[in-house]
Amino acid sequence: MAGRTLTVSIDAMGGDAGPGVVVAGLARSVIRHPNVRFLLHGDEAELKPLFAKRAKLLEKVEIHHAVERVRMEDKPSQALRRGRNTSMWRAIESVAKGEAEVVISCGNTGALMAMSMFQLRTLKGIDRPAIAALWPSMHGQTVVLDVGANVESDAKQLVDFAVMGQAFARAVLGLERPSVGILNVGEEELKGHESVRAAAQILRSVSLPIEFKGFVEGDDISEGTVDVVVTDGFTGNIALKTAEGAARVVINFLRAGLRRSLLGRIGALFAAGALIAMRRKLDPRASNGGIFLGLNGVVVKSHGGTDALGFASALDMAIDMAEADVLPKIVADHARIAEQATPESETAVAGTGAGAA
Amino acid sequence: MAGRTLTVSIDAMGGDAGPGVVVAGLARSVIRHPNVRFLLHGDEAELKPLFAKRAKLLEKVEIHHAVERVRMEDKPSQALRRGRNTSMWRAIESVAKGEAEVVISCGNTGALMAMSMFQLRTLKGIDRPAIAALWPSMHGQTVVLDVGANVESDAKQLVDFAVMGQAFARAVLGLERPSVGILNVGEEELKGHESVRAAAQILRSVSLPIEFKGFVEGDDISEGTVDVVVTDGFTGNIALKTAEGAARVVINFLRAGLRRSLLGRIGALFAAGALIAMRRKLDPRASNGGIFLGLNGVVVKSHGGTDALGFASALDMAIDMAEADVLPKIVADHARIAEQATPESETAVAGTGAGAA
Repeated sequence: MAGRTLTVSIDAMGGDAGPGVVVAGLARSVIRHPNVRFLLHGDEAELKPLFAKRAKLLEKVEIHHAVERVRMEDKPSQALRRGRNTSMWRAIESVAKGEAEVVISCGNTGALMAMSMFQLRTLKGIDRPAIAALWPSMHGQTVVLDVGANVESDAKQLVDFAVMGQAFARAVLGLERPSVGILNVGEEELKGHESVRAAAQILRSVSLPIEFKGFVEGDDISEGTVDVVVTDGFTGNIALKTAEGAARVVINFLRAGLRRSLLGRIGALFAAGALIAMRRKLDPRASNGGIFLGLNGVVVKSHGGTDALGFASALDMAIDMAEADVLPKIVADHARIAEQATPESETAVAGTGAGAA
Repeated sequence: MAGRTLTVSIDAMGGDAGPGVVVAGLARSVIRHPNVRFLLHGDEAELKPLFAKRAKLLEKVEIHHAVERVRMEDKPSQALRRGRNTSMWRAIESVAKGEAEVVISCGNTGALMAMSMFQLRTLKGIDRPAIAALWPSMHGQTVVLDVGANVESDAKQLVDFAVMGQAFARAVLGLERPSVGILNVGEEELKGHESVRAAAQILRSVSLPIEFKGFVEGDDISEGTVDVVVTDGFTGNIALKTAEGAARVVINFLRAGLRRSLLGRIGALFAAGALIAMRRKLDPRASNGGIFLGLNGVVVKSHGGTDALGFASALDMAIDMAEADVLPKIVADHARIAEQATPESETAVAGTGAGAA
């Protein structure tokens, strides 16, 4: 990959903290990626002063003036109709026009998805995009998708998510043959929705560069039982947020417990290094950003409330994705499934699609 | 409630650890509940020796001999067909016959649900039972249901879960007017499945002794934003297990971090009290047991892998439920909804029921 120049398109105006965080994150990431150029979309008057003391950084950056911005409270449909002059629209447009390989924004997720679908369209054969997240596990990181793009998914869509998730795991986690599981309420073949059972049947019958492990349960995500966990966006979104909440409550109980006694406060001093290491491992910044998969272009959504470190780490992931050429791999694997799918599994898909509507 | 004698029926042969744990748990619980009698169903030859040094406990306990037992790997349908002589069947039968107010088992969940539905039947007006769990939160405990009885739930069933959950929260958490939320992927009215939106519409339109807060998200469970979180059994089961896994990973990271350095190990010594307090708060034993709600009888499922302390705490909850007379309250609140439901919301329910099939 060395030597190849990549271009990353950035919506500089999204997020709660404004463009200051974006530019500070950019300054961190550029050191690690000397071959990457950046197109920065946003309000010139706000952006230019941020480079006053960063003349060297500006050599890698092209500022593209955009008058408007999408606000966090805007509805996706409104943003889509009236947002052609926003930094978010323009940032996606750079990818649609082939000027950049990947776009990143820490703005409104719904608007970003709506604009991305409109401008980039889904990949050949893929009905619906998915949002993938990286989850800290006992053994490293687990890819989970969909975590919120779709409220319901039929068997065909779940199979597509498996294809997209394994391509992502190979690109970002560097795995040769990722293991994949479908999230369910038990490991037995007969459990769960019609759609998860039909999807498992298809994945068992086709040959892909993955190890398909059948069904996994909620605790397998943190356990790291498989590299990729496939689920519908309703379940995935709720599971992700529930887990974040549970982790937060554990840390709060611990903090409160340590503060309560003198011994605890002394212990906390000695254990500070360990506590910081733990926080770093769990830090959402370290696995910051959801990735929109299944579109003709890579779209990375960074957390709205992130800081410079978090934005830099989302940028790193975006660059990994662009370097790994994930999209053609998804299309090829998807075509492979379409060819291999047996008549039975095709029927199962059709049947489920109708039933789950 | 003092003075009233309650009878608890126990399946002594379920669980991974066998009847020893059950009897040891019983010995703990009986001290706190002098007015409770216990019917212990199981193999007399195994049970009797466990009371050799517990003559006083035996005064409160009636051993009912049952030759067979349901194994953890038995399928619910098999257990139902061939299990009439098992300790689990007999334990439920005691409630069905009115000999006991509540039944508790740490055996096979699927078999316990199938046998309970067959023998106890659902409450008037309730289509499907739900399994409720108590979840540790920042402010105490949150009731979550359904966590696994049903794979799909329509709007009417979600409303029933809200009615059952609030009655449970009043009984076990002692709340006068519990707050209730429906689990969704966002708080806006337009988000989520048809079924959660229709259920919210009904709960907004009826008058119940609850504070209905609309939609809540995954992290609200641990946050304790509401007292009762309503969801379908697929989502609830996955969310619960995902959260347990996330909490475990945090604790493991912390433990590993503390072990890694000498300072960490010294810190852990000083902080031991705080760490133990945290573990106690998060201990699944302290909120051990799922409760089957919606049947003509209270059924408590204790964890299969629990110890004596865990079984005692599940027993405590079973006794709380029995003392609070939850079932007639559920029936009354349910009837109230049926009377109040507006024609629009009735239509919404009917429409969703068909659509979600």
